[in-house]
Amino acid sequence: MKTLSRRVAAEFLGTMFLVMAVVGSGIMGERLAGGNIAIALLANTIATGAALVALILTFGPISGAHFNPAVTVADAIERGIAWREVPGFVFAQCAGGLAGTGVAHRMFELPWYSLSTHIRSGSAQVLSEFVAAFGLMSVIWGCSRLRSTAVPFAVGCYITAAYWFTASTSFANPAVTLARCLSNTFSGIRPADVLPFILAQLAGAITATLLFRWLSPNLPAKDVLVSHGSVLGKG
Amino acid sequence: MKTLSRRVAAEFLGTMFLVMAVVGSGIMGERLAGGNIAIALLANTIATGAALVALILTFGPISGAHFNPAVTVADAIERGIAWREVPGFVFAQCAGGLAGTGVAHRMFELPWYSLSTHIRSGSAQVLSEFVAAFGLMSVIWGCSRLRSTAVPFAVGCYITAAYWFTASTSFANPAVTLARCLSNTFSGIRPADVLPFILAQLAGAITATLLFRWLSPNLPAKDVLVSHGSVLGKG
Amino acid sequence: MKTLSRRVAAEFLGTMFLVMAVVGSGIMGERLAGGNIAIALLANTIATGAALVALILTFGPISGAHFNPAVTVADAIERGIAWREVPGFVFAQCAGGLAGTGVAHRMFELPWYSLSTHIRSGSAQVLSEFVAAFGLMSVIWGCSRLRSTAVPFAVGCYITAAYWFTASTSFANPAVTLARCLSNTFSGIRPADVLPFILAQLAGAITATLLFRWLSPNLPAKDVLVSHGSVLGKG
Amino acid sequence: MKTLSRRVAAEFLGTMFLVMAVVGSGIMGERLAGGNIAIALLANTIATGAALVALILTFGPISGAHFNPAVTVADAIERGIAWREVPGFVFAQCAGGLAGTGVAHRMFELPWYSLSTHIRSGSAQVLSEFVAAFGLMSVIWGCSRLRSTAVPFAVGCYITAAYWFTASTSFANPAVTLARCLSNTFSGIRPADVLPFILAQLAGAITATLLFRWLSPNLPAKDVLVSHGSVLGKG
Repeated sequence: MKTLSRRVAAEFLGTMFLVMAVVGSGIMGERLAGGNIAIALLANTIATGAALVALILTFGPISGAHFNPAVTVADAIERGIAWREVPGFVFAQCAGGLAGTGVAHRMFELPWYSLSTHIRSGSAQVLSEFVAAFGLMSVIWGCSRLRSTAVPFAVGCYITAAYWFTASTSFANPAVTLARCLSNTFSGIRPADVLPFILAQLAGAITATLLFRWLSPNLPAKDVLVSHGSVLGKG
Repeated sequence: MKTLSRRVAAEFLGTMFLVMAVVGSGIMGERLAGGNIAIALLANTIATGAALVALILTFGPISGAHFNPAVTVADAIERGIAWREVPGFVFAQCAGGLAGTGVAHRMFELPWYSLSTHIRSGSAQVLSEFVAAFGLMSVIWGCSRLRSTAVPFAVGCYITAAYWFTASTSFANPAVTLARCLSNTFSGIRPADVLPFILAQLAGAITATLLFRWLSPNLPAKDVLVSHGSVLGKG
Repeated sequence: MKTLSRRVAAEFLGTMFLVMAVVGSGIMGERLAGGNIAIALLANTIATGAALVALILTFGPISGAHFNPAVTVADAIERGIAWREVPGFVFAQCAGGLAGTGVAHRMFELPWYSLSTHIRSGSAQVLSEFVAAFGLMSVIWGCSRLRSTAVPFAVGCYITAAYWFTASTSFANPAVTLARCLSNTFSGIRPADVLPFILAQLAGAITATLLFRWLSPNLPAKDVLVSHGSVLGKG
Repeated sequence: MKTLSRRVAAEFLGTMFLVMAVVGSGIMGERLAGGNIAIALLANTIATGAALVALILTFGPISGAHFNPAVTVADAIERGIAWREVPGFVFAQCAGGLAGTGVAHRMFELPWYSLSTHIRSGSAQVLSEFVAAFGLMSVIWGCSRLRSTAVPFAVGCYITAAYWFTASTSFANPAVTLARCLSNTFSGIRPADVLPFILAQLAGAITATLLFRWLSPNLPAKDVLVSHGSVLGKG
């Protein structure tokens, strides 16, 4: 029943809503906060963290609720998803993210897309994204192997925290990063800064994956595969 | 034991408290926020999201905790509730919402009712309500079929996020929309803008329902019916 | 093993920490908020709601985590606790509340006790307390009969919301009301306003109890008694 | 499979991320809050509380997710962990904390370490730390003996509240206290104030441990030991 087309559709919808939450709440927060950036970011944080909980609970049983190419690649490395399914997932995530930016803009009466001029460059930003993705993937592996029903809450809480403890506000997601470079609003990122972000995210996610292979090897290979299917797939 | 009168009473009480939370916290937030609308909306958001979690946990086992004609109609489309029970549910929701507005006003020393002058018109607002209700119904179908105990948290988190990522602050509920047009306060809506909101909400909820019929058809028709009873009815 | 002395000690400790959370976070919030009352109340709200979740999870298995004479009386009406144990519970709650005020004051370098001058009078305030306690007791009965593990989260979320949707910031607790009249700080209440608050709280809690006897009579009398013991006592 | 080296690595990583969350969100909060300390502390609070939920869910199954020498010592007193393993745990926690400070600083383009000049002295501060650690350990013992899956949420909620109801913002953790004295930022503590904090934290944690030995002796000694292993070790 969980055909690839359904799983891909779930990844598209989930990533679309995730990006809508990030971009839309950034616009709303900045418009209402009267210049206090901390209040705008607080609204952005709460909306994103809460959206993640709701969306992972909603789409987790269908597709595993990756919404994130770095998670999909890490899952493939651990044989949780077949490599041949990765392109479909990543394409759906990127397309969903772009759709999310466009719909968010239309809800706030902005043009469909606009190139961001928000500079996010330098080694501290890249380090932040490495740390953010390393932590995200650690949370996913730590929870999904032994407490899978906690994944939605753990991921939502982690991103809520990481918005504030990383200097980059923790994008931690290549598809979302791509989608945000087409939004010249609060949560945007300059196109020139996208590639270093994505590379740092992939490096962080893969490093955490290899570390947790040693740290939490509780299941034999075959069970890991089944378990991932069940963890990320059925929650 | 769960007679229709009890279920209708639960819908009345739950929607009354939900509207009290929305309208009351809007009044309190605006009074205390010293002109910073983001802070007022943050208080409004937290109160509404938290109230939803508490109220769905409380009344879910009795009536399914719809509190929302769009949810009741969607549930009827999927045969989770009999069509002959829909009018009673919808009437209780609308009456409960109106009671909630009145009691909230009295707690804050305002007249029982006042027509709102808060303009919420235009295609961007209507699009926002379509998106908000589409997302809400997606969350409900996604969670209730496979992880029913998560519904209260998923819905509370979703609305918390949607307050910020839609331009309309996500009414997503015809009964609540009606109740809010009788409150000339922070969370009000001009009566003239009510109908487009309600139509967009119904369209969004029904679209999501049809989509999830394809996306998550995990249960045969008969089980779906039973499951809905158990999901929305007993949680 | 769960002797009365242990249960009474748990009620003392839990109510002490609850009042510390209310009074202490009120002081801290007001000191730091730079005159913006909404921000102070937001801090007060988050601290109180979060403390309730933690404290009910902690002491629920020992004493049922009432922390509230209105809840204890309502539980006795429904035979969840023996009437002969009520005085001990209520005394422990009141003593714990007073201890909480004193310790909170000492942590913030204030005198042990001070009479509040914070006026909270008038019918709108009394109505607010009736509504607040009615809702609190509804949440407890609604959750504890069928989803007891949800009680800590439901109560924490409910109070988080009720801080903002009632004009009185939802004391909803006679022992806490008493303790707060001895604190001339943000969360205080003038001694002259205590009695109407307590009467409204008791009326609200008892009304909800009688209503839920009809609304949610899912268990026969004997089971109700056992269930209450297990619900409020063992979670 | 849960060798000491894996458990020690989990304590290192978890404490590192916990301190990153505390220090990093303090820096970000202060930078963005425009001088309103309450807003900065609100961001700091939300990030820390959310990080705790995520990190305890993640590392709990591996090491028990102490992240805190006072918790490790208390657990050893109750024979939840062998005394011979305590030094390794405490060393990993302290080293992880120091790593967390350094990485947080680098993410925000600050020098690796800087001695804090933030004065936190006096008996009210010491009392605050005693209360904070007493409460934290009460929450852990109260939940872990009978509702172990609730520990991550209970601890996250408790610290969220304690940030505001204690005058010291509730360090409650010797390893974190040590790490914070090397950060001359929002969340720092002057080195001269570290020792009284740590002594008060240990006293509070041990007092709560002895109290709960009487208050919640639900399990015979041998089972307690096993249960702790399962509670703090496998969650």
